[in-house]
Amino acid sequence: MLGSVPTTPKSFEDYRPVIGDERTEEILALAALLRGARVLHVNATAFGGGVAEILGTMVPLMNDIGLAADWQVIKGADEFFNVTKAMHNSLQGMYYDWTPEARNIWLEYNRLNAELFDDSYDYVVIHDPQPAGILGLVDEMRGTHHGKWVWRCHIDLTDAQAEVWDILRPHVERYDGAIFTLPDYVKDDLHGPTVFCVPPAIDPLSPKNVDLPMETVHEILRRYGVDPDRPMITQISRFDPWKDPLGVIDVYRALKRAVPELQLVMVASMASDDPEGWAWYERTVRRAGEDFDIHILSNLNGVGNVEVNAFQRAARVVIQKSTREGFGLVVSEALWKGRPVVAGNVGGIPLQIVNGKTGYLVNNAEECIDRTLSLLQSPEEADRMGALGIEYVRDNFLTTRYLRDYLNIFRQLSGIAPAVRAPQPQQLRH
Amino acid sequence: MLGSVPTTPKSFEDYRPVIGDERTEEILALAALLRGARVLHVNATAFGGGVAEILGTMVPLMNDIGLAADWQVIKGADEFFNVTKAMHNSLQGMYYDWTPEARNIWLEYNRLNAELFDDSYDYVVIHDPQPAGILGLVDEMRGTHHGKWVWRCHIDLTDAQAEVWDILRPHVERYDGAIFTLPDYVKDDLHGPTVFCVPPAIDPLSPKNVDLPMETVHEILRRYGVDPDRPMITQISRFDPWKDPLGVIDVYRALKRAVPELQLVMVASMASDDPEGWAWYERTVRRAGEDFDIHILSNLNGVGNVEVNAFQRAARVVIQKSTREGFGLVVSEALWKGRPVVAGNVGGIPLQIVNGKTGYLVNNAEECIDRTLSLLQSPEEADRMGALGIEYVRDNFLTTRYLRDYLNIFRQLSGIAPAVRAPQPQQLRH
Repeated sequence: MLGSVPTTPKSFEDYRPVIGDERTEEILALAALLRGARVLHVNATAFGGGVAEILGTMVPLMNDIGLAADWQVIKGADEFFNVTKAMHNSLQGMYYDWTPEARNIWLEYNRLNAELFDDSYDYVVIHDPQPAGILGLVDEMRGTHHGKWVWRCHIDLTDAQAEVWDILRPHVERYDGAIFTLPDYVKDDLHGPTVFCVPPAIDPLSPKNVDLPMETVHEILRRYGVDPDRPMITQISRFDPWKDPLGVIDVYRALKRAVPELQLVMVASMASDDPEGWAWYERTVRRAGEDFDIHILSNLNGVGNVEVNAFQRAARVVIQKSTREGFGLVVSEALWKGRPVVAGNVGGIPLQIVNGKTGYLVNNAEECIDRTLSLLQSPEEADRMGALGIEYVRDNFLTTRYLRDYLNIFRQLSGIAPAVRAPQPQQLRH
Repeated sequence: MLGSVPTTPKSFEDYRPVIGDERTEEILALAALLRGARVLHVNATAFGGGVAEILGTMVPLMNDIGLAADWQVIKGADEFFNVTKAMHNSLQGMYYDWTPEARNIWLEYNRLNAELFDDSYDYVVIHDPQPAGILGLVDEMRGTHHGKWVWRCHIDLTDAQAEVWDILRPHVERYDGAIFTLPDYVKDDLHGPTVFCVPPAIDPLSPKNVDLPMETVHEILRRYGVDPDRPMITQISRFDPWKDPLGVIDVYRALKRAVPELQLVMVASMASDDPEGWAWYERTVRRAGEDFDIHILSNLNGVGNVEVNAFQRAARVVIQKSTREGFGLVVSEALWKGRPVVAGNVGGIPLQIVNGKTGYLVNNAEECIDRTLSLLQSPEEADRMGALGIEYVRDNFLTTRYLRDYLNIFRQLSGIAPAVRAPQPQQLRH
């Protein structure tokens, strides 16, 4: 029932120049201990969304360093994905009227996927709630299972609706390990699995993050009518109230009084099946009005990963004026481009910004205006912070660190190493 | 190769209360002369676009009045539809670099569709250029064909690129009849087929045009934040330069100085694969700025046919400030709602508006402002014009007139009646 997802091979050695010999050798040493181990990642979709993006890198890297990794997606009809979408939303705090029927649909499709499950892997990583029931149903049908099982939760469970967590919890408690993004996201009443905290990471070689020559950056800016010779700030975010796009425009307007040449580039990814996203897009464009130094761009204008990369590199300062965040990985993306980031002090953002060193954590519009203005007025200071940001991301938020974390978790669950420190972001070296 | 399109049955008698006994009996008498005649419509798509919309009504109505009508769509791979899209655009005046290869692709898929063609129909109506080659290829393969063949051209050929018309013309010249929307659209160098001019028409019983109770209209307005108790004007149109959406907002702003309570509703249908449409949408929203008495709506806000119907009915005046039009059937849609229409004097619009009686033809912003203001200030005059508009559309632009035109054309091509006047819009009765 599960479907295999083919991936493009990647070479781990390509990352050596980015992360240096020491980190490279550390990972290769870990991989040697797990040579030939068969690993299976299972999630809900092969395309779209952060999880698919991460697996598209993680699975080929694991293969390249000597493990035997596969990626499969759970199959289901619309009724299943309707239920799992509701499950996802109510785990994030939305209310949903849970019925026994909804629970049965979730279980029934997990059962169908469990029936033909190839239970021969050494490590099975189940991502998010959709396929989380497979382990329990394999046990129920066969009385046992093979290998170590890890549930990787990408969701902030802080405000999870009790009814849906109660459906999920007994299934999760069968796992050997459970990985959360932040310590705050771990539920107090989860007993059984060894708990790990692993933040997400960016792929430094992906089109969104790879180094771009400045002439390419400027060419992309010009193509979208942005003047490379005038100062520019940017926010790359969905248009929704929690990213405060209207507040970003207000900040820009306040800054423009002091820096009349200032430009603002806002980029979002728009989905045609998201009416609220559209309403906020319209609201944002209305606030911009006919000030054409404000550029509001999206996939509809042909803006993709490379263009986002260019706008981040060209910005004097990157803004992330969030009032609520899951993790906010876009902050690491921007820091990796060597730009200082001024961002809301919420979610995973404080983990990524060392306040006053790689950018500023701000709590309101005034702070955002003050901090951004000071960076606009001191380009050298902005560049200095940007350079520190690159090092901080290199230490903490690259996909190779994420790979190392997986290897450490597998080792620990199999008792290959007597103890492994819970992977934590390192302190900034400066 | 051709695919059959199933349609929902319709009852012609449902139209009797709308068009009256005289027109009903006239059509039934014509149908009696053609009883049992087998009719085939062939076009390129079963869903989307005006042609599919018209066939979804025309085919079941023909069946209901005693003919035996079928609808089939031509099949082809992407390469075929890429070529026919280019063909369509260059027939409308865009330049395209025509290669022998493109022509061969068009011919080859027409040949595949011709090979299995069921050549047993009495009347074959081929819509637009995509399947226009079938007749010639049936002739080539079988040496002959059955029945009368009509090419129905929905495109304005005025500025057609010579190369593509030269590909098409020898094929079209084999037909018994050719139907164009307006006399202006007929190419001078077309020889052979009997030429008919038949404008498009609206279905008075479709969700877009059917009568709605005022409470439903008001409920729909309120759902979109429009105040039913304050005056409102509307334009229902794509956002593109030829519909002048920015000019519509400027007209509204000028009017609002005299009528401070005025609201403007603009509705467009947005397609995710139309970057220019998006650019114009953004441009329009920017012009609107934070004046929330301007409502900019689309399918993205859930606006569909019924909502358009409601906005047209609720408008004091309907605007269609086009600077270029194919036919502009939206004008008849609005007139059918009993509202006066102030519209650009272009394309098929002068055929639909009797200037000074059912609305006003305008040539610039000042005229548009003056005429709309006079109607806003004289609601009785606006209602009187609206009432005349309903009668004009009933006489000239309902789908039943279109049906009658087809019956007359079939009769004439078969010599069943000695002569049939070329169907022309009648004069306004007032």
